[in-house]
Amino acid sequence: MSKKFMDKNFLLETKTAQKLYFDYAENMPIIDYHCHIIPAEIAEDRKFENITQVWLGGDHYKWRLIRSNGVPEEEITGSADDRTKFQRFAEALPLAIGNPMYHWTHLELQRYFDFNKPLCAATAQEAWDICNAKLQSDDMTVRNIIRKSNVSVIGTTDDPCDDLKYHKAIAEDSTFKTTVAPSFRPDKMVNIDKDGFVEYIAKLSETVGSEIKCVDDLLAAAQSRVEFFDKMGCRASDHGVDYVVCNLADDKEVDKIFKKALAGKEISIDEAEKYKTALLLFFGRQYAKHGWVMQIHTNVHRNTNTLMFNKLGPDTGFDCISEKEFSLSLVHFLDALNKEGNLPKTILYSLNPNDNEFLGTIIGCFQGTEAAGKIQHGSAWWFNDTKTGMQKQLTDLANLSILGNFVGMLTDSRSFLSYTRHEYFRRILCNLVGTWVENGEYPNDKESLEKIIKGICFENAKNYFGFNMK
Amino acid sequence: MSKKFMDKNFLLETKTAQKLYFDYAENMPIIDYHCHIIPAEIAEDRKFENITQVWLGGDHYKWRLIRSNGVPEEEITGSADDRTKFQRFAEALPLAIGNPMYHWTHLELQRYFDFNKPLCAATAQEAWDICNAKLQSDDMTVRNIIRKSNVSVIGTTDDPCDDLKYHKAIAEDSTFKTTVAPSFRPDKMVNIDKDGFVEYIAKLSETVGSEIKCVDDLLAAAQSRVEFFDKMGCRASDHGVDYVVCNLADDKEVDKIFKKALAGKEISIDEAEKYKTALLLFFGRQYAKHGWVMQIHTNVHRNTNTLMFNKLGPDTGFDCISEKEFSLSLVHFLDALNKEGNLPKTILYSLNPNDNEFLGTIIGCFQGTEAAGKIQHGSAWWFNDTKTGMQKQLTDLANLSILGNFVGMLTDSRSFLSYTRHEYFRRILCNLVGTWVENGEYPNDKESLEKIIKGICFENAKNYFGFNMK
Amino acid sequence: MSKKFMDKNFLLETKTAQKLYFDYAENMPIIDYHCHIIPAEIAEDRKFENITQVWLGGDHYKWRLIRSNGVPEEEITGSADDRTKFQRFAEALPLAIGNPMYHWTHLELQRYFDFNKPLCAATAQEAWDICNAKLQSDDMTVRNIIRKSNVSVIGTTDDPCDDLKYHKAIAEDSTFKTTVAPSFRPDKMVNIDKDGFVEYIAKLSETVGSEIKCVDDLLAAAQSRVEFFDKMGCRASDHGVDYVVCNLADDKEVDKIFKKALAGKEISIDEAEKYKTALLLFFGRQYAKHGWVMQIHTNVHRNTNTLMFNKLGPDTGFDCISEKEFSLSLVHFLDALNKEGNLPKTILYSLNPNDNEFLGTIIGCFQGTEAAGKIQHGSAWWFNDTKTGMQKQLTDLANLSILGNFVGMLTDSRSFLSYTRHEYFRRILCNLVGTWVENGEYPNDKESLEKIIKGICFENAKNYFGFNMK
Repeated sequence: MSKKFMDKNFLLETKTAQKLYFDYAENMPIIDYHCHIIPAEIAEDRKFENITQVWLGGDHYKWRLIRSNGVPEEEITGSADDRTKFQRFAEALPLAIGNPMYHWTHLELQRYFDFNKPLCAATAQEAWDICNAKLQSDDMTVRNIIRKSNVSVIGTTDDPCDDLKYHKAIAEDSTFKTTVAPSFRPDKMVNIDKDGFVEYIAKLSETVGSEIKCVDDLLAAAQSRVEFFDKMGCRASDHGVDYVVCNLADDKEVDKIFKKALAGKEISIDEAEKYKTALLLFFGRQYAKHGWVMQIHTNVHRNTNTLMFNKLGPDTGFDCISEKEFSLSLVHFLDALNKEGNLPKTILYSLNPNDNEFLGTIIGCFQGTEAAGKIQHGSAWWFNDTKTGMQKQLTDLANLSILGNFVGMLTDSRSFLSYTRHEYFRRILCNLVGTWVENGEYPNDKESLEKIIKGICFENAKNYFGFNMK
Repeated sequence: MSKKFMDKNFLLETKTAQKLYFDYAENMPIIDYHCHIIPAEIAEDRKFENITQVWLGGDHYKWRLIRSNGVPEEEITGSADDRTKFQRFAEALPLAIGNPMYHWTHLELQRYFDFNKPLCAATAQEAWDICNAKLQSDDMTVRNIIRKSNVSVIGTTDDPCDDLKYHKAIAEDSTFKTTVAPSFRPDKMVNIDKDGFVEYIAKLSETVGSEIKCVDDLLAAAQSRVEFFDKMGCRASDHGVDYVVCNLADDKEVDKIFKKALAGKEISIDEAEKYKTALLLFFGRQYAKHGWVMQIHTNVHRNTNTLMFNKLGPDTGFDCISEKEFSLSLVHFLDALNKEGNLPKTILYSLNPNDNEFLGTIIGCFQGTEAAGKIQHGSAWWFNDTKTGMQKQLTDLANLSILGNFVGMLTDSRSFLSYTRHEYFRRILCNLVGTWVENGEYPNDKESLEKIIKGICFENAKNYFGFNMK
Repeated sequence: MSKKFMDKNFLLETKTAQKLYFDYAENMPIIDYHCHIIPAEIAEDRKFENITQVWLGGDHYKWRLIRSNGVPEEEITGSADDRTKFQRFAEALPLAIGNPMYHWTHLELQRYFDFNKPLCAATAQEAWDICNAKLQSDDMTVRNIIRKSNVSVIGTTDDPCDDLKYHKAIAEDSTFKTTVAPSFRPDKMVNIDKDGFVEYIAKLSETVGSEIKCVDDLLAAAQSRVEFFDKMGCRASDHGVDYVVCNLADDKEVDKIFKKALAGKEISIDEAEKYKTALLLFFGRQYAKHGWVMQIHTNVHRNTNTLMFNKLGPDTGFDCISEKEFSLSLVHFLDALNKEGNLPKTILYSLNPNDNEFLGTIIGCFQGTEAAGKIQHGSAWWFNDTKTGMQKQLTDLANLSILGNFVGMLTDSRSFLSYTRHEYFRRILCNLVGTWVENGEYPNDKESLEKIIKGICFENAKNYFGFNMK
């Protein structure tokens, strides 16, 4: 018999799946160890005026979807009014059958706004009214959304030059129980070939209060920022690299390349790769020293549409999956750090799901005693954060490594309503494991199952990152 | 309980799937917007002598299958009699469990010949007799096959030098209600590195009635053929490229390369890529101007078996999937046209299903207001035209874009009996959507579902291509 | 209703699947045509002292698993006692839900030791006692394990310099009914760029009793070893190549490269590729002449972890999947042999499952009359030897070729307890075929189904290899 639309057993196809979810997964706190929310909005406990602001203010997933429906940019990111923009989204959504956004959207409507109808052109006005009314209540400030979402830790993504004053303010506020930890993302220090590099180095110089003239100066500055972040509770870094490189060069050559870039001269691809390799190796050593987790996000083509990049800038919905072959480079990179005994805990994410099998096997080559599952294959990322994408990542990981040691889900989101993606993930996880149990592929042993489910939902991340929890 | 072999609910595993198929999909007309049938055979309303002629006369899919059973070429494409060739196919078929040809074959036997047994060595004689008897009747002329298949539009594949006289004759014949539109496939003009290029340019020169000495002459000739095709009802082009290139060069360099080739000199890979890029950009602009759809078919190794190529020529079953990485080139190619405001509606097909995820995301970077789903990821092509291949393409598209805007299926076939592949596709589509509905992943909302199913089966292609329908 | 853990219908989800398995698959003898067991242990009919020796003595799959649980090397391959090592494995196993090792382990415990509980920390002592007691009995000598596993043929993997004295001894012992045939694996002759090449050529020289100074000498030696192996019942070769090359050079150049290497000089990548290409083409011709099967295993990064390689050497669990693009090289390589009429029967294995679709189509380009399915896509290999990996390989093969001609499963194992992997494969195969039948996608025709299942389990390999069976 057919199930109702997104009811309480949504995605839980068997009795065992339901039991696993409701007994072990549903009530575990959330450790959202990697996201892009703005800490100031927590510190200031922001309120939102309307659902378009929350949903369509900065969400490039939704913008892409509306664009794919032939809608003019004016009514997406342009000067059209908020109500019109919401209508365009509501019109596109029913055609997006099978898209994760269909589920994300309705989970958010159900959980945060108690709106249980399908959103479409005809129901848009009703949804608009209900959501906006709720957003006026104190129940729906940023902090209260986080509270009702049972979020234990939030790992933000921060530039090394950031003074982390909002993190400090939040940490010192004993009325707010969620830990908000910074993550160290030094992409601007690494991307020697991108516009703004020289200006960034000047900014870093100012931040640390000493001039940066050579690579040694740069690394000293970088180290001082790592130490500052560490004091501020940072337990993880994040590197976004279009593709993984391991192009080794000696210190002198790297210094020369850096000086060339500082002098405003053009850098060749080979030079850029050498500099990036040196920086990433340096950072790896730093993270190892502090027991941090190194996250690498890769295989992306960013800003593919020049016309729109010039209009809207980066992170506006014009990135796509890359197919670059980086397996040998990653082998060499991990081996280089490991040889010196400086390989930190590492989580590897590729935007291309074809890399899953390679990643699932390379992690097994560099494990260590620092943690169960020291090297991890990260949760299905960005375009892969779908029902089938998560099933594939979980299945590949189970096939190739120890699923029970997986550190699990993160939202990677810019929105405070995205915590339901953890629910989405947990339902998919419990359904997968439940199916195995019902098929007789794993024993129906409560103790093991509880350990696995609670581990992946919460305990593993807690132990792996070692956040200093409030 | 086990289902009967290919009965009326074939591939429709749930009540909802059955309802979707019978209520919305089954009776929609077919727009077969890309195929390789010979228009003369429609104009002349060909009759076939026997089933071997229809099935094994030019079908390299079936030849490959028989070869994989260890049968000598003599009994496949050679001088053996038609009855023997049919027998060899019937012997191989039962071993091809799980192969789409098993389903295609039996759908054709059931729908066109009312033969409902499994075809095998033992039933081959009976099938041979029944099929051949039917083929004698006027019911089974080419036009009557098309009529009973409810085909609304056929998009053939035509060389720019073609005079399209058969298209004209069919268009003028008011007794035949199917629109037969040409598609523009200028591969021979683009493939500067293939044998016969110089001869082809001479032929083109003759066709347009003016000598072609430089690239400007060539492009003028090309443009006049585009205009002729446009007048003849053409709404789409097609480019078969082994891999996508975007190797930009200035006009002078391209002109030099073209002249070098015309002079019979050897062209380097780099030169060929530059020339091809220039031609494809030129064609893209032309298509944008006329509102045509640009189709790109890529990632193929053609004519891999030299021995057999020398015996049988191209398109005889010796092509395979390539693994070339072309993601960055395609990004640059689409961006180059888009920057000038000249990106036409585009459908991208790769023979390698590993490219699905890349394609599903790049299309979202270049959408526009010309159509809902201006840039499309084409239906599972050639070797991927299987149950699992179509499920994967539909699922990937749903995950990464708006499935409801998909322009749907095409046969890509050389045979008039292949229209049942649309039935095959529609059953798979309805089954997938039906499963989502029954799982509670999408609401059981008649209006949305009807729009989605009828859209993908017919309406979307109708709106997207804008054929001038009879 | 939920099924019991790994009961008699394990993985057989439908009545038809059960029928196919018990009627046709279960009792077929095993042809394990490619494995890495040590023939001396058969000849000497080795007994094992304890379960750690059998399971953890040389099994790098299990080592990787334990490492992924954060266990120190000391307790994996180090000096810890056998009982501790067993405990560490038992502790890691329950977390490895969804991993094939979970199933392999329990199949072995059930079939060979009659131990039917899940293995975990709490049951480890009981398992230890029961297994070790059984291992003391004559029932569990190597030969008796092979006998009770119903193994008809074992294809070992042997160096060309091997004297095959154990194969001879086994062949001459009429009390042992299993055929143990050597396979010819000349990797050390091919890997001109690896340490130990010069020493290996010296050893080969000694083996054949004549000095090897040039490539002609080398090929003469190689040919004499092929002829010796052929006399000893060899029917297959095996080549492990990190990636497939086809870099053609003339004989003189190859001779120069070989002499350069013999002189201890460094060889460039281009030179190594040319030499390897020449050697592989030479071997291909030899195999064609003798009717042998050429096996190619590719797309691997080996020994990725330098630290551990220096401690433990090769094949210790530090290899991973590679993503190298080799499709064009493989096309050229097969075409080169085929053009001369010297393409042997060939089985292609890639460690990267993304290559499945390419492999499934390239095999269809080079079929021949020597065998039904002359060119094969090999069974899911190594990291892909999982439930989903086998399902994918079978489904891809079915989509793209003739599944009914598949030569089926092999263990590739170093352990005498791995024959249950054939059971695992057969259950998965029967379940897949059974599902198709129950869905009405294939007729419920006993004769065809029996032929297909028995063929893939036993008959196809028997006919394809042509082993001289005892």
